[in-house]
Amino acid sequence: MHSELLFSYHSVLEALKANKRSFFKLYISKGNKREREIKSLAEKKNIKVEYRNIKDIEILAGNENTQGIALEAGAIPFFSFDKITKEETPFLLILDHLQDTHNFGAIVRTALCANVSAIIIPQKRAVKPTPIVSKISVGALEHINIVSINNVATSIDKLKEKGFWVYGLDGEGKRSIYDEKASLSLPLALVLGSEGQGVTRLVSQKCDELYFIPQSSLIDSLNASVAGGVAMYEIYRRYLCT
Amino acid sequence: MHSELLFSYHSVLEALKANKRSFFKLYISKGNKREREIKSLAEKKNIKVEYRNIKDIEILAGNENTQGIALEAGAIPFFSFDKITKEETPFLLILDHLQDTHNFGAIVRTALCANVSAIIIPQKRAVKPTPIVSKISVGALEHINIVSINNVATSIDKLKEKGFWVYGLDGEGKRSIYDEKASLSLPLALVLGSEGQGVTRLVSQKCDELYFIPQSSLIDSLNASVAGGVAMYEIYRRYLCT
Repeated sequence: MHSELLFSYHSVLEALKANKRSFFKLYISKGNKREREIKSLAEKKNIKVEYRNIKDIEILAGNENTQGIALEAGAIPFFSFDKITKEETPFLLILDHLQDTHNFGAIVRTALCANVSAIIIPQKRAVKPTPIVSKISVGALEHINIVSINNVATSIDKLKEKGFWVYGLDGEGKRSIYDEKASLSLPLALVLGSEGQGVTRLVSQKCDELYFIPQSSLIDSLNASVAGGVAMYEIYRRYLCT
Repeated sequence: MHSELLFSYHSVLEALKANKRSFFKLYISKGNKREREIKSLAEKKNIKVEYRNIKDIEILAGNENTQGIALEAGAIPFFSFDKITKEETPFLLILDHLQDTHNFGAIVRTALCANVSAIIIPQKRAVKPTPIVSKISVGALEHINIVSINNVATSIDKLKEKGFWVYGLDGEGKRSIYDEKASLSLPLALVLGSEGQGVTRLVSQKCDELYFIPQSSLIDSLNASVAGGVAMYEIYRRYLCT
């Protein structure tokens, strides 16, 4: 059976709280300042607890920032595309082949804060919901719905059939997200492109509209995770304020 | 004379374009795909050009991501606190002891895009405008005004005397940045706290108001650079849309 090793306090804590995975074994360093809290959560779920020194846990995790806490767990279960509905999951985020693990972690964290219902990622040539992403997201990955799809363009067609508006975020967009005519209302799917290429051509053609973030700058553009954050929060602001 | 080594294409390119530093010597790898562009810019400024292999440039820079381009230059000149006026520099950002270099680089990049007039940083126990920050900011650091101060609280008093409103961003704030009564109008100084502590107590007492970013989340809070980005863009939106 597939298992992976979550690590660091927040990732393990939120995995246990969210309770979406299967859990096999907790590794913790003796005298860890989080020992009581984490161990008691693990024992309530009948997870075997094993003491190891921090160095061993770092080697197991292949990472030097474990804080002496790791949890062997099953893969995070995907949320089914078929369960997406405009009533139940009205705010979708589609990552059109995002590449960078740090950007993915930051976007997941922001998405949870901005009340995104689910994040849709393609299965191939794109970021995956790995333990390092869970750590970078400060455990937000454990709570948010992740949907895995084969093809972004085809999925957009299906979302439109389900009644979603689909909007791409792109420097080449025709309308500012702050334009008073911007129709960023739910149910919608916001498409973010990859760091290098932005939204791919076929996908941008499928979008109902392409929006840009206004920038008074000599420099390229915003970082992918900040741009995603600003756009998600503009949508969040609109439904908060209405 | 103090010199430092800028590196990577965007950092060096933007330093040359901004033309705020003194320049001593350009190091470039032979056959570098940016050779013609960078070399011609350097020669127009009578900067000595020296060919080195990439490995040497990496060693000089103490960094593996130089793209074979480095520029020996003077420190970035600070913008004088005395030159701050509500007419000329109406949108200020104060970083109250930010610690993380990556967050600083990302915030600098976003600040330039959101039309921030100047970034104010304390001289001690806080991030500094180093070459790595220039690189992370994709060269935005070369263009933005950086003001170095001794004491944040005292500087806030002086800014108030100059006619600025001073607003802190803090999870404990009383009002949402999206509250219709939020008075986020220019001239203002937005205070962002450090990653761990947020805005320090004395500084938060000096602020005219503390704002929070609404979050529908089980998890802690937004990443510092995303939170800063969302708040800067809310201010930018307001003056764009009026």
